[in-house]
Amino acid sequence: MLGVCYYPEHWPREHWAEDARRMRALGLTYVRIGEFAWSRIEPDPGRFTWEWLDEAIETLGSAGLKIVLGTPTATPPKWLVDRHPEVLAYDALGRPRRFGSRRHYTHSSRVYVQESRRIVTEYARRYGQNPHLVGWQTDNEYGCHDTVRSYGPEDLRAFRDWLKAKYQHIDRLNNAWGSVFWSMEYRSFDEVNLPHLTVTEPNPSHVLDFYRFSSDQVVAYNKMQVEVIRQHSPERFIAHNFMGFYTHFDHFALADDLDVASWDSYPQGFTDREAPISDERKLHYARASHPDIAAFHHDLYRGARARWWVMEQQPGPVNWAPNNPAPAPGMVRLWTWEAFAHGAEVVSYFRWRQVPFAQEQMHAGLNRPDYQPDLGYFEAKQVVEELARLPLPETTLAPVALIYDYEASWLFEVQPHGTGWNYTVLCMHFHTALRELGLSVDFVRPGADLSGYKLVVAPSLPILRQRTLLALEKTPCPIVFGPRTGAKTEHFQIPPSLPPGALQNLLPLKVTRVESYRPGLADTVFFGGKKWKAEVWKEWIESDLQPVATFSDGKGAIYQHHHLHYLGFWPSREFLSAYLGQMVRALGLPVTPMPEGMRVRQRGNLVFAFNYADHPQEAPAPRGADFVLGSPTVAAYNLSIWKQG
Amino acid sequence: MLGVCYYPEHWPREHWAEDARRMRALGLTYVRIGEFAWSRIEPDPGRFTWEWLDEAIETLGSAGLKIVLGTPTATPPKWLVDRHPEVLAYDALGRPRRFGSRRHYTHSSRVYVQESRRIVTEYARRYGQNPHLVGWQTDNEYGCHDTVRSYGPEDLRAFRDWLKAKYQHIDRLNNAWGSVFWSMEYRSFDEVNLPHLTVTEPNPSHVLDFYRFSSDQVVAYNKMQVEVIRQHSPERFIAHNFMGFYTHFDHFALADDLDVASWDSYPQGFTDREAPISDERKLHYARASHPDIAAFHHDLYRGARARWWVMEQQPGPVNWAPNNPAPAPGMVRLWTWEAFAHGAEVVSYFRWRQVPFAQEQMHAGLNRPDYQPDLGYFEAKQVVEELARLPLPETTLAPVALIYDYEASWLFEVQPHGTGWNYTVLCMHFHTALRELGLSVDFVRPGADLSGYKLVVAPSLPILRQRTLLALEKTPCPIVFGPRTGAKTEHFQIPPSLPPGALQNLLPLKVTRVESYRPGLADTVFFGGKKWKAEVWKEWIESDLQPVATFSDGKGAIYQHHHLHYLGFWPSREFLSAYLGQMVRALGLPVTPMPEGMRVRQRGNLVFAFNYADHPQEAPAPRGADFVLGSPTVAAYNLSIWKQG
Amino acid sequence: MLGVCYYPEHWPREHWAEDARRMRALGLTYVRIGEFAWSRIEPDPGRFTWEWLDEAIETLGSAGLKIVLGTPTATPPKWLVDRHPEVLAYDALGRPRRFGSRRHYTHSSRVYVQESRRIVTEYARRYGQNPHLVGWQTDNEYGCHDTVRSYGPEDLRAFRDWLKAKYQHIDRLNNAWGSVFWSMEYRSFDEVNLPHLTVTEPNPSHVLDFYRFSSDQVVAYNKMQVEVIRQHSPERFIAHNFMGFYTHFDHFALADDLDVASWDSYPQGFTDREAPISDERKLHYARASHPDIAAFHHDLYRGARARWWVMEQQPGPVNWAPNNPAPAPGMVRLWTWEAFAHGAEVVSYFRWRQVPFAQEQMHAGLNRPDYQPDLGYFEAKQVVEELARLPLPETTLAPVALIYDYEASWLFEVQPHGTGWNYTVLCMHFHTALRELGLSVDFVRPGADLSGYKLVVAPSLPILRQRTLLALEKTPCPIVFGPRTGAKTEHFQIPPSLPPGALQNLLPLKVTRVESYRPGLADTVFFGGKKWKAEVWKEWIESDLQPVATFSDGKGAIYQHHHLHYLGFWPSREFLSAYLGQMVRALGLPVTPMPEGMRVRQRGNLVFAFNYADHPQEAPAPRGADFVLGSPTVAAYNLSIWKQG
Repeated sequence: MLGVCYYPEHWPREHWAEDARRMRALGLTYVRIGEFAWSRIEPDPGRFTWEWLDEAIETLGSAGLKIVLGTPTATPPKWLVDRHPEVLAYDALGRPRRFGSRRHYTHSSRVYVQESRRIVTEYARRYGQNPHLVGWQTDNEYGCHDTVRSYGPEDLRAFRDWLKAKYQHIDRLNNAWGSVFWSMEYRSFDEVNLPHLTVTEPNPSHVLDFYRFSSDQVVAYNKMQVEVIRQHSPERFIAHNFMGFYTHFDHFALADDLDVASWDSYPQGFTDREAPISDERKLHYARASHPDIAAFHHDLYRGARARWWVMEQQPGPVNWAPNNPAPAPGMVRLWTWEAFAHGAEVVSYFRWRQVPFAQEQMHAGLNRPDYQPDLGYFEAKQVVEELARLPLPETTLAPVALIYDYEASWLFEVQPHGTGWNYTVLCMHFHTALRELGLSVDFVRPGADLSGYKLVVAPSLPILRQRTLLALEKTPCPIVFGPRTGAKTEHFQIPPSLPPGALQNLLPLKVTRVESYRPGLADTVFFGGKKWKAEVWKEWIESDLQPVATFSDGKGAIYQHHHLHYLGFWPSREFLSAYLGQMVRALGLPVTPMPEGMRVRQRGNLVFAFNYADHPQEAPAPRGADFVLGSPTVAAYNLSIWKQG
Repeated sequence: MLGVCYYPEHWPREHWAEDARRMRALGLTYVRIGEFAWSRIEPDPGRFTWEWLDEAIETLGSAGLKIVLGTPTATPPKWLVDRHPEVLAYDALGRPRRFGSRRHYTHSSRVYVQESRRIVTEYARRYGQNPHLVGWQTDNEYGCHDTVRSYGPEDLRAFRDWLKAKYQHIDRLNNAWGSVFWSMEYRSFDEVNLPHLTVTEPNPSHVLDFYRFSSDQVVAYNKMQVEVIRQHSPERFIAHNFMGFYTHFDHFALADDLDVASWDSYPQGFTDREAPISDERKLHYARASHPDIAAFHHDLYRGARARWWVMEQQPGPVNWAPNNPAPAPGMVRLWTWEAFAHGAEVVSYFRWRQVPFAQEQMHAGLNRPDYQPDLGYFEAKQVVEELARLPLPETTLAPVALIYDYEASWLFEVQPHGTGWNYTVLCMHFHTALRELGLSVDFVRPGADLSGYKLVVAPSLPILRQRTLLALEKTPCPIVFGPRTGAKTEHFQIPPSLPPGALQNLLPLKVTRVESYRPGLADTVFFGGKKWKAEVWKEWIESDLQPVATFSDGKGAIYQHHHLHYLGFWPSREFLSAYLGQMVRALGLPVTPMPEGMRVRQRGNLVFAFNYADHPQEAPAPRGADFVLGSPTVAAYNLSIWKQG
Repeated sequence: MLGVCYYPEHWPREHWAEDARRMRALGLTYVRIGEFAWSRIEPDPGRFTWEWLDEAIETLGSAGLKIVLGTPTATPPKWLVDRHPEVLAYDALGRPRRFGSRRHYTHSSRVYVQESRRIVTEYARRYGQNPHLVGWQTDNEYGCHDTVRSYGPEDLRAFRDWLKAKYQHIDRLNNAWGSVFWSMEYRSFDEVNLPHLTVTEPNPSHVLDFYRFSSDQVVAYNKMQVEVIRQHSPERFIAHNFMGFYTHFDHFALADDLDVASWDSYPQGFTDREAPISDERKLHYARASHPDIAAFHHDLYRGARARWWVMEQQPGPVNWAPNNPAPAPGMVRLWTWEAFAHGAEVVSYFRWRQVPFAQEQMHAGLNRPDYQPDLGYFEAKQVVEELARLPLPETTLAPVALIYDYEASWLFEVQPHGTGWNYTVLCMHFHTALRELGLSVDFVRPGADLSGYKLVVAPSLPILRQRTLLALEKTPCPIVFGPRTGAKTEHFQIPPSLPPGALQNLLPLKVTRVESYRPGLADTVFFGGKKWKAEVWKEWIESDLQPVATFSDGKGAIYQHHHLHYLGFWPSREFLSAYLGQMVRALGLPVTPMPEGMRVRQRGNLVFAFNYADHPQEAPAPRGADFVLGSPTVAAYNLSIWKQG
């Protein structure tokens, strides 16, 4: 089903009914509203002006739309900030991050938690039982504009409390952090600062704990909103809209408190700005978007919650990337279908109409500022019609699981130890390599049950907690571990037995030394009769096992013990295609190498092929496949769907 | 006529008379003094030591030099700053910009306005009627070192007052800015902050108003000085020395209060540092300076005021660019002549003698620190001799007008919407393309009377005010509009009828979508039987008109309606040469394509050819032309002048 | 002899004895301890816990190790900082540099000087007469993490005092600085600020004085520690461990108060991070380290003090460079031998064992965190065995002296006047060129006695003090001066007679103009029948002398007068090889051109050849040389030693 984001407060009231009518006429089911409207709901402290929102909900709802209401906490009004300047977040240089855009609060502010509880309670009380309301969105894009980690007085106070709760006694903290190094020892929790503005790098254990704390604060803040809503609006689902390429809090943990995970999918904006890919790739896919960006996040957030939406779908050019080309014709439809292929329940476009003022005036909508339909409108319409003809089966388990670890991303931020080491890039290498083999992939969290999978890959799991080890131990299928797995204790120390620490019980090897390479420097890995470049990272491994592949000096680069594989270097996408391809073939799974720009994804018994290329390509379908949408030749920026044989 | 900048306070008193004598002997007419001398005039608060300046003026004047006196407000002394720290400007990160160099004040400081009025009054009273004094310079290089926009408490107060005066009621501001977006609504003007240190980008209307306010503050500050001087020194001209590549205030508006516009021409320093040109071009022209840089500003400031000077002319290597090569031999003479070709009344060298101490000790003068003449001295001498032989005719209207819009440059700073969009670069593309066709160009402000021109180009006019529209409407000659013209209302909103807004009445087309391209991405424009690259920016246009040129998808790229042309993309210099060349030929104007490094400029009946190349080139003169200076072959770094046939 | 750095406080007490035993078994003589242990010695203000350090010293000492004790002042504990926040340094943006890593103090803090005196007195009293203690290290790596220049209130107070002492009267300061420029005049020392946060660049004389002051503060602070130690521990040597590529204080001046100069040699970390060499060279030597980096500093610090150590020798991969490759096998041994070749008394490895926690957990030691020997251990062992067989002769004077001037490095930081001008790079060009000719080089300070040398090079001496001029005047051997020599007075002004100022008495020439070039721009120098590129910098020289070499315009580029040579341009390494090679041959010194990666160094009658290349090369030894280590073919990353014929 499809939806749209709408801001009645941006448009003259006399247009609401017509807008609602046209939404329904287009075939939209859901409309999300309200998430930035605090100043219109409570223009002065304690004075509420619900009437317009009452009318908007009634107008939209009575037109047949189902309403998702956002809590307005991402944009506290000026009067609140002026009354309580302590709600502001502080940047890492110690400056308050001021009013004038959005997300100007820290999750650790006691006043802001209280004010948020108050306004969410008001919202939930007023609309919690409204018949048109089917669900809630908490806040908006937690963390957007780097707002999870804050360095102000409220954060310091909360961090000290968090440390006290975690370590109980300051000696335990000093031991965990190795504070004896450089005389960094503390006599009490009240002596601990936030880890910033130090002369040189702060203690990595200190930083990692601050990153964990910061993540916990977001989760707790969201849980507070969820509890208020559940109390006053018991039969509605609760969602939050996550972002792309954002890792500063544990989305798995936060999603545990939600009913629906959702995310905001801007494949072109991400291609131009966030995506950790080369400029050459950014250019190549500037008009289409990179073919693995949306899929990566679909797979990630499906792993966070079985029910998941795309809450905001790019409908045309965006405004916020350094460069903002228009999507190639067909891409809005392709992105929408791709979300469904990956299991989305709803795809909701952002926004109904391009707004002519303020920060996002250059962001396209389904409609233009002159109230005429824009190009995305027609592509959405086509999806509506196609969806009506094609019932979607249930999403089933993918053959491959990728273990994705937020803590790993924080740890490697703190200690990349080489300019080329980047956790997201590493995960993308695995994910893309598997997709280039034609495989569907599930993302799972560390410690998740892995039963049912044919293959598990763990790009890197530097801290192996007990729960994770148990899950790995019980898993009968092959597991491929990437470099730096087991490299640290939970306190960010090197394990006494050296890496991979406790994994040595399952995989008898020891990493005795590591090295990182500047661009251009590489070792060679000999595998499968070929030479592969090991750039970025290499490990020196001691083991009685016979290596599966060796470095240029004959030392082991890959080890296998029973069904467990260990890669002692930074694996390129090309190498992973070869290595995982060989494994997958050995497992008897079907492998279909993808040409550049072509990707497939299976949902139930349907196989979807998406062509991100600027020219037609043959669908990687079996001979005589039964095409239920499209045809064996997939046009540029188009898709085909066939039934699995 | 020629002049020089001189600092008697830097040199032993016993050298003044000899310096004056040698200035006259060289043939200089004007000498500018005094503009940084506050600490020598008022060494302690209220204690004045005029005697040395009295003597300096008398010495210079009685030697036959005409004196231009600068007010010393660019460098308030330390005691003033210590007594009134609130005079300091604040940077965008909220830090005071401290004493220790120059321009350490904000135009919004009430104390500083008062102190400035006091010192200017003292100056004007003492020297306003001095027979040697012919003119004044207010302050020095307003805006230098990014000093127009300031973010301190005095600025905030003044900005709120400015907003109050502009909008009267806070609701009008909220509507104009679209504050409802992201709950940015204000309840009173006292709630509005300066638009900085926000979590993500501030509201663009908010920023544009702050930029307008900042420009207005400079204009008001200068007007205050002008009024004081006019009162006490009624028969002297008043000038200010503007800079190159600087746009943070409206130079047209400020010049309205002056008698003489002047600017400080450092073509090599600009080539190495400011000029928005490629590194390849910076290298190619490192020794000569880029051939359009001085001309661009000559044309701009002639547009600000009919009487205009070069107040500071580079006389040798400068000190302030990242790299400071010596000018190729001949360039000082060439630059001087070029200013006269463009209509300058006076060219004044900076400075008489290289000073051996402080920040500018590595900046050349006409004389070396050891009191011997430097190379520039001899080139100036040659110009003196040549000028004596060659009376210059009046400057007349150029065939082409370029509409230059400071507000456009601010608006595109706020919202470039693509990494490649830069207003100055766009204007340079038009200006250079016209000069490469051998045409002289006038810069005019939006709303200026355009009668008399054969062709008008408007690189971009995003906000079309009534006055501008009227001037355009009345213009019978062809007008070429660049992209984004009419793209915004005066409140920085998208026009309800879409761009180009009110211009649609004259030019029936509608821009329904825009896109920006990363370097390497481009669309193609088919024009004149050739393919042209449309990089940076493309527009999607709806119109019943037949397009003059099309994009690769067949949609219109250029439209013409009667004498109005609209370019729906970022035009390259090469494209503009072709397009404008065709137009100019059709208009029956003479077109003389210039070889690389050669430029011509007409003044009255004289045509000047300047060879910026490192090798001789033929002057683009008609056969049998009457050369009054130089010859048909122009040596490297040299010029020729002939009479128009 | 060899040593090691050890941190007993990082390891369980029960391992100390075994560690000590293994150190001795490896053949180590010295162990440095204690320099970061303040929080363990004085965990609360005034409460001392000496017992563990007593035991550690006794355990190590009774095992036969000689102990060097570091004063712990580089890491004041948290309680001290909380009690006295004024001890913190401030960065150039005016922010305190906070607790949480190390070196969080300013040398100008009166409280910190007092607290340092107190703790050093405690250390010196307790262990000053300990029989196991042979020497002291003051603090640790003064200046590390850019901690010499501090911009806080204590620094301002101390700087004003320093200026008062230097200039006595404010008029002398105003004259020296040329404060009249831009009305920067001061009425008293209390009006002078620190030279930062100004609107544009501050007065260069102001900045240079601040840099001199900052250097003096470090020297004074160290002298305070030295005096305390000398009082309580009279018969032990005192050392400090300097760094690589660090110039913010005058190491010669500081070393005057020491008995032993030492430095911390991390050739690979420097190659990846600090070294001012091209990315191409960084890549080429990523595994071996650049072949002149260690040698440069060995020669520099031998010039600071006849007795010198490598206090910290890289033993494996480091953790602190952007990329941290492992040293090629053999490099740890090679680096150790190279230090001895250059005259080191002791080489001490950092550290005994890789520590599994805190900031340096990824820094290798001689042993791994699992208590097993790492690769460096075995290379150190080999050196121990080789040293035992090969007695080292005394170090003698090198044939060539290079005058190295800290003040020059500060002055050129303040006024590079061209992006390519870098004093360290210039010195490396001379040093490397001489080493490529097979010559050993001594670094000497300006004013040092130059007798005994065959050739002296002065890459640049911008300020020529009387003492330096006298030393130059007395020197009978050839002296080669690089560009900008004599370019400034001691107050950072251009000399009245123009550069090279007072040197004109010895070398009759005058630099009338200089210019700097962007990359790609160059003039040509004709010398020795070849063309050489003069990039970065060129001077215009007037002289009655016949030039030795000319620029493309025929003007003189090099002048020689008797035995003095002046280079009026930025000399490339290649040019210097040719020019100095010709001179050296003319002097009858043996010249042995080195192939890429090969370097020699003579110590007494032994010649050492080091092969930094990844392939074997012939040792540049005479036929039939008597090899006492290695052989005529030097393997990759290996060395040979032969007796001079």
